Amino acid sequence: MPVTPEQQTEIDALRAAPRLTLRAVSEGMEAHLYSAIPVLDHGFVRVIDYMGDDAAICQAARVSYGRGTKSVQNDEGLIRYLMRHWHSTPFEMCEVKLHVKLPVFVARQWIRHRTANVNEYSARYSILDREFYIPDAAQLAAQSVVNNQGRGEALTNDEAARVLRWLKEDAGRAYDHYEAMISQDGQQGLARELARMNLPANIYTQWYWKVDLHNLFHFLRLRADAHAQYEIRVYAEAICKVVAAWVPAAYGAFEDYRLGGATLSAKALAVLRRRLAGEAVTQETSGMSKGEWRELEEVLG
Amino acid sequence: MPVTPEQQTEIDALRAAPRLTLRAVSEGMEAHLYSAIPVLDHGFVRVIDYMGDDAAICQAARVSYGRGTKSVQNDEGLIRYLMRHWHSTPFEMCEVKLHVKLPVFVARQWIRHRTANVNEYSARYSILDREFYIPDAAQLAAQSVVNNQGRGEALTNDEAARVLRWLKEDAGRAYDHYEAMISQDGQQGLARELARMNLPANIYTQWYWKVDLHNLFHFLRLRADAHAQYEIRVYAEAICKVVAAWVPAAYGAFEDYRLGGATLSAKALAVLRRRLAGEAVTQETSGMSKGEWRELEEVLG
Amino acid sequence: MPVTPEQQTEIDALRAAPRLTLRAVSEGMEAHLYSAIPVLDHGFVRVIDYMGDDAAICQAARVSYGRGTKSVQNDEGLIRYLMRHWHSTPFEMCEVKLHVKLPVFVARQWIRHRTANVNEYSARYSILDREFYIPDAAQLAAQSVVNNQGRGEALTNDEAARVLRWLKEDAGRAYDHYEAMISQDGQQGLARELARMNLPANIYTQWYWKVDLHNLFHFLRLRADAHAQYEIRVYAEAICKVVAAWVPAAYGAFEDYRLGGATLSAKALAVLRRRLAGEAVTQETSGMSKGEWRELEEVLG
Amino acid sequence: MPVTPEQQTEIDALRAAPRLTLRAVSEGMEAHLYSAIPVLDHGFVRVIDYMGDDAAICQAARVSYGRGTKSVQNDEGLIRYLMRHWHSTPFEMCEVKLHVKLPVFVARQWIRHRTANVNEYSARYSILDREFYIPDAAQLAAQSVVNNQGRGEALTNDEAARVLRWLKEDAGRAYDHYEAMISQDGQQGLARELARMNLPANIYTQWYWKVDLHNLFHFLRLRADAHAQYEIRVYAEAICKVVAAWVPAAYGAFEDYRLGGATLSAKALAVLRRRLAGEAVTQETSGMSKGEWRELEEVLG
Repeated sequence: MPVTPEQQTEIDALRAAPRLTLRAVSEGMEAHLYSAIPVLDHGFVRVIDYMGDDAAICQAARVSYGRGTKSVQNDEGLIRYLMRHWHSTPFEMCEVKLHVKLPVFVARQWIRHRTANVNEYSARYSILDREFYIPDAAQLAAQSVVNNQGRGEALTNDEAARVLRWLKEDAGRAYDHYEAMISQDGQQGLARELARMNLPANIYTQWYWKVDLHNLFHFLRLRADAHAQYEIRVYAEAICKVVAAWVPAAYGAFEDYRLGGATLSAKALAVLRRRLAGEAVTQETSGMSKGEWRELEEVLG
Repeated sequence: MPVTPEQQTEIDALRAAPRLTLRAVSEGMEAHLYSAIPVLDHGFVRVIDYMGDDAAICQAARVSYGRGTKSVQNDEGLIRYLMRHWHSTPFEMCEVKLHVKLPVFVARQWIRHRTANVNEYSARYSILDREFYIPDAAQLAAQSVVNNQGRGEALTNDEAARVLRWLKEDAGRAYDHYEAMISQDGQQGLARELARMNLPANIYTQWYWKVDLHNLFHFLRLRADAHAQYEIRVYAEAICKVVAAWVPAAYGAFEDYRLGGATLSAKALAVLRRRLAGEAVTQETSGMSKGEWRELEEVLG
Repeated sequence: MPVTPEQQTEIDALRAAPRLTLRAVSEGMEAHLYSAIPVLDHGFVRVIDYMGDDAAICQAARVSYGRGTKSVQNDEGLIRYLMRHWHSTPFEMCEVKLHVKLPVFVARQWIRHRTANVNEYSARYSILDREFYIPDAAQLAAQSVVNNQGRGEALTNDEAARVLRWLKEDAGRAYDHYEAMISQDGQQGLARELARMNLPANIYTQWYWKVDLHNLFHFLRLRADAHAQYEIRVYAEAICKVVAAWVPAAYGAFEDYRLGGATLSAKALAVLRRRLAGEAVTQETSGMSKGEWRELEEVLG
Repeated sequence: MPVTPEQQTEIDALRAAPRLTLRAVSEGMEAHLYSAIPVLDHGFVRVIDYMGDDAAICQAARVSYGRGTKSVQNDEGLIRYLMRHWHSTPFEMCEVKLHVKLPVFVARQWIRHRTANVNEYSARYSILDREFYIPDAAQLAAQSVVNNQGRGEALTNDEAARVLRWLKEDAGRAYDHYEAMISQDGQQGLARELARMNLPANIYTQWYWKVDLHNLFHFLRLRADAHAQYEIRVYAEAICKVVAAWVPAAYGAFEDYRLGGATLSAKALAVLRRRLAGEAVTQETSGMSKGEWRELEEVLG
């Protein structure tokens, strides 16, 4: 259960107390505030606060570009123009603060995105809860044979069952010992900052994560991508829904230009020009490596 | 006049349209939103948006430190604890977006603080207005004789009058030529991105500047300091007033620990211990250089 | 003259004193160290120090990806793979420190790239030299009629001559008054931090600028682009030459995937697929705006 | 054993091949290059590359402050001045790249310092080694009773022995299962990106970590502090030794002004002034909280 009844009561109370503000308000985001979107077996994403909306992006662009931007007739067109030409600073003018509950091994991938503010639950100060990510059997896949990272075929039933049994047993035993080590019942009790080292990487942690929209889009492009690990991709997809509600025009441009777009090399563009001129180009005559050629084929469907 | 009648009408309209939100609201900040605080002769600072309040700082800290932080009985005590022990991430959870109009030479100092988001008015796209910072005669001071940077005594009347005449005449002529160069009246008209190079550093520019509270405090500590150049210090002081209204507990801690505090070296602490033990210590017996000694004397009043 | 005889003597002395090191050495970069590459009329770019080479990029990638990366047969192939898949951290493992002399209006564009370290000559402490950027007549162009920023046709001789006369006269007079204001000959002398405000944006400043290779590539992609202002593009082009000598494989990948490449939107990719399948697609049937369509046509030549 | 014989052979080869360079060379750092400084039971810190030295800090400062800085007679005095007045940019002009092998729970603390470049060993691509941090019995301490984080008394022998037995057994079993899950011997073999979730936080990882000297000092001030967790403090102390060899003047200033110094609040300074004037001040008459008063007492010895 991602959210306890006490937490739900707190969320309900926060959602029941609207106040007046003079700031920009995004109705789509107000509908999300504080509520937990469940992710994986015990995780969630919650919006705690936000700043700005589609209009704020345009307003910032118009400070920069002044009269020039007024010729673009509407906000959506301007936002698409900014996204297309990599004008990133107007998107930086929006900010969001999320509360995320996630397995430690996902948190370790996530934190590589450094341009964000983070407050994580401290296992030096506090006791971690007995909550571990145990994958659905359907998610248990073999190592990919075509990709040094990533997953291939689903495991057979027997192998999957053995994996799940080990994951559950090892996590349970590690937590039993964690509890026993820190217990002050009849013993001194090991310091929490030491005892935590016994806990596996599928234990859940949580944090507040605050980021501007430009850097969030960068995160989403990498983590909502089909090549991202499933366990972080589901968080990215949950955030995508939130962002689509928050800044629909910016999210639409992001989908078109980033998520659904592709960057082609000079070599790939040269191949395209030849093909559009009617020439039949093969990998051998393309000047591209086999890997690049295969990736280009995928992009061109 | 920092704000035009049209801008004031727009500000009044924005301030007349409160909306409902579920987010944290700072009443002190709502009172400031959109209004222009005049700075220098044509400049201003305006709050465009903000995220978070004193409670949000504590909430983020409690995510990190969990049960431990509940022993601190109130928010103000917790905020002082966080500030004292350099726990910066909870302060990063608040964000503010300002609209600032300022002379270019002030903007050049300001932008050295890199951990912020900026959208500046573009002189490639748009035409700059004829507005220049001309100091009050009282601000015209000689080069300091004790400090390689900074100001000393006020200039005498004649010298000050000559300075003001040159500043006004040169700025006016430079702008006349700027206008004449870009004019498309009977000529092609020089590109704006070139013509701007004729304009002096006291011309006004403007930008949106968005920063988190931790980095804003860092900016304010350096720029609201008595050693900062007067022309940026007055902006920092205007922002201090805004921050005091926004997050009064955090601002109070900032005043005590940063603005009014001092960092003493190991050598200075050793001197203090000796003095508190009754020993008369001189610069010669302190192990400190003359400069360090003088600065310590200033701190100890 | 970008470099004084004294500076040249100093450069020659530095270049005459090789020392032994155990660090990675790039012969291409050693050939550049300290020497000034002239840019514009008084500017330059000089390499002061560097860290890493092509091999260092691969070494960092192999720490991350371990055995997996060994299947890529050579360093160049690995570097191209990293660039193609936006693995930016190995490129961050190289660093360069440049000494740049540049007009203030160019410095103002440059500094918007915030992920770098900067030490700029301080006009509060020191007296600026009488050096101004005066464009070649061939560079004096009219405002573009198709682009709100940017240049169009060259100015006619008469108009160009008038522009040059104003730029020279105004700069000269502003500097005369700057000198007269700070002079302590028979008067107090205005503080340098105030007097500088009279100087126009084409005066030269200088700084040390230190940046990692990933962020440098980002800077070069934007500033070596045909849409960048000529006066910053020539600096970017000078730096491109330095980088090509420093990390030839990485620079080659950058040229192919970034400088010469293009990002296509989902809509543009759909159009391409239809055209490759033999369909004649027009702007009207493409689902793209006129601006997007025109830009796609340019990319596809 | 932190370094394998193969690694040591590689290190010896790297150290046997000096090359000529025109760059600044720090003899103290050359003596450290590539060699592994052992930390904890299997960890290490190695210098892979560096840029700059004490003279480079001064050179950068002199670019900024020009003639003004020449009045400071020597480099050490200038460096102390810069450190004392928080002029951080000259220190940013030095850079170091370290190879660190460390337990995952230490890596999680470390990575919170975001202003650095990181390439970590990827457990998606590669198989982690069977190496776990098992503390010395002497390091096994109870939870502190005065501090919500941190350690108190050493555990008694029996309790310590039980802790060590659990840590070893749980790590061993988790790794056995990790190996068994990814094995492709007679089964499909679970993807590495999933299997790793079974591994505890005391397993070793490794990374390249590149940082400028200013941000490194910030890291060291927090992590070489007596309040930092022992397991990260030993890494910070190893790095302190490296930095002292690299930039002795800067490290000396850092020791005096940061490591050995203290920041006093306005209230604390007021108390000091009263005490120096001969007044007996108590916590009750100080205006300070009990916590603040106790901390001030500690600073004043």
